[in-house]
Amino acid sequence: MKKIINDPNCVVGDMLKGMQIANSNILYNPNKEVIARKVKSNKVGLVSGGGSGHEPAHAGYVGYGMLDAAVCGNVFASPSPDQILEGIHQANAGKGVLMIVKNYAGDIMNFEIAQELAGMEDIMVDHVVVKDDVSVKDTDESTGRRGIAGTIFVHKIAGAKAETGASLEEVKKVANKVIENVRSFGVSLSACTIPAVGKPGFQIGDDEMEVGMGIHGEAGIETTKLKSSKAIAELIVEKILADKDFGQSEVAVMINGMGATPLMELYILAGDVNDVLIEKGLKPIKYYVGNYMTSIEMAGASCTILKLDDELKELLLSPCDTPALKQEVSQ
Amino acid sequence: MKKIINDPNCVVGDMLKGMQIANSNILYNPNKEVIARKVKSNKVGLVSGGGSGHEPAHAGYVGYGMLDAAVCGNVFASPSPDQILEGIHQANAGKGVLMIVKNYAGDIMNFEIAQELAGMEDIMVDHVVVKDDVSVKDTDESTGRRGIAGTIFVHKIAGAKAETGASLEEVKKVANKVIENVRSFGVSLSACTIPAVGKPGFQIGDDEMEVGMGIHGEAGIETTKLKSSKAIAELIVEKILADKDFGQSEVAVMINGMGATPLMELYILAGDVNDVLIEKGLKPIKYYVGNYMTSIEMAGASCTILKLDDELKELLLSPCDTPALKQEVSQ
Repeated sequence: MKKIINDPNCVVGDMLKGMQIANSNILYNPNKEVIARKVKSNKVGLVSGGGSGHEPAHAGYVGYGMLDAAVCGNVFASPSPDQILEGIHQANAGKGVLMIVKNYAGDIMNFEIAQELAGMEDIMVDHVVVKDDVSVKDTDESTGRRGIAGTIFVHKIAGAKAETGASLEEVKKVANKVIENVRSFGVSLSACTIPAVGKPGFQIGDDEMEVGMGIHGEAGIETTKLKSSKAIAELIVEKILADKDFGQSEVAVMINGMGATPLMELYILAGDVNDVLIEKGLKPIKYYVGNYMTSIEMAGASCTILKLDDELKELLLSPCDTPALKQEVSQ
Repeated sequence: MKKIINDPNCVVGDMLKGMQIANSNILYNPNKEVIARKVKSNKVGLVSGGGSGHEPAHAGYVGYGMLDAAVCGNVFASPSPDQILEGIHQANAGKGVLMIVKNYAGDIMNFEIAQELAGMEDIMVDHVVVKDDVSVKDTDESTGRRGIAGTIFVHKIAGAKAETGASLEEVKKVANKVIENVRSFGVSLSACTIPAVGKPGFQIGDDEMEVGMGIHGEAGIETTKLKSSKAIAELIVEKILADKDFGQSEVAVMINGMGATPLMELYILAGDVNDVLIEKGLKPIKYYVGNYMTSIEMAGASCTILKLDDELKELLLSPCDTPALKQEVSQ
């Protein structure tokens, strides 16, 4: 295992300490591994979180226009209910708290317990569950689609809505509108290594890629020969459109690196995805290209497409100021 | 070679096309591989560039408060004089153009030729040479210290100065003040592969790291056993302070990922570097943690320290709005 770390069992605390040093607008509570805004805002509070190893998600999205607190579990492990309750406390300004949870059984269980605990303290808490990864079928019999990079669009849009002074119910409604309209799919070229485990999560050949992998070091739904960027773009867009027909809509697109993929490759893929989308009649109006929701040092990329209407577009393009995403009005 | 690309010989053009799609404030000239601001600003123009493979450098720094144009050579290869001349044309608003050149013989030769060509067109052009990498000794007999991530601080500070309406001479003066006061040192955990070459630039053992490597896929000045983040932080700071004594100054610090290093590790290293700097009596007042000047998909990190005075501090903390770096006044 080659990593710039100290103790493999202390990576989350060591990382959050560094994150606090580098960002003066956030506060790190080392007892509960919670990152929160330094100045509480008089609005609906937004909390997200989950296992670490997805940096900058979610702590990097704490700040104006996005989250109020992020709860950081161990690498790829759900945070505990009492950690999440601390996140709720940090985010609560008396207007209620919305939790944005990725669709994993452990996360849902712990965030729901925390919601109950907060209810006992008369804090109004609700939650939404993000399920954007079309590599897993959404059926009544299973947990269904996983939550991956589409979660960032939920942070952005629900965060912008909360800044307008909207009610908990209104913020939840727009968050669910994003969830209904966002889909993702990814490919990986290498596995990643959980520090406390010390070896890669799967083996992959020098000429192979994993198609439809998740963000927790697991292999994909299929192993294929490595394809060109154009072929990967076609594959990804086909998989997404097979799950949801976006018609001829305006869309926002995120080309997300999994951690070890250079920006060069992400931009090449963005160009190819754009060609495919335009060929299919979609109207991409905004791209996000970079490492937004990673899987430690996995090489690969995911593509997320969000169907926009006037409301979602306005909220997406509104300003935000967080360590990992800054937007000014002009954009 | 595992990369999300199409033709290994077309990666730069394909990448810049994607970069243009993702960023509405920049314009890509595909004939000369130049990225420039869409709207020309009435001030001293700033041009940088060099080989590609260092993304987001330099094209990602084109925008308000930083560069006016970036000239993109092939991967790890200097752009040609006529490409650089196109960059000068894009940046020139009649107030003169300053070129920020990293200290490599090929870059310096081609930028100087372009400066001469521009002179024949009566465009006032000057240049500065960044040489921040202390792993190479600065002697009269050699090219001396290489230019690496410290270049971003020159972009930021010279860019802020140019936005104030300062003259070419004044912008050059502050750029040289940054160059005088900035030093960097890095370590790598893996090699990178130039797409058109197809194999890694050097071999490295599973338990080894390269110390003092450059940003062009070359090995370092020494190969050692992989060290802990704390030990790497101590090593880096010692190397930098041995080259330049920063006294008890306020400093800005950049913890720069080489391309494949997860943010988790960069933040851990940032925390450890901060501990060492404070122990040595320095006063870090601003951190930049992320991928600022990469070496394709190399794993590793460099640390850059910039000694600040009131002028440099004010210019560093002033706003900018580029694809890769956005700052608001509040920071």
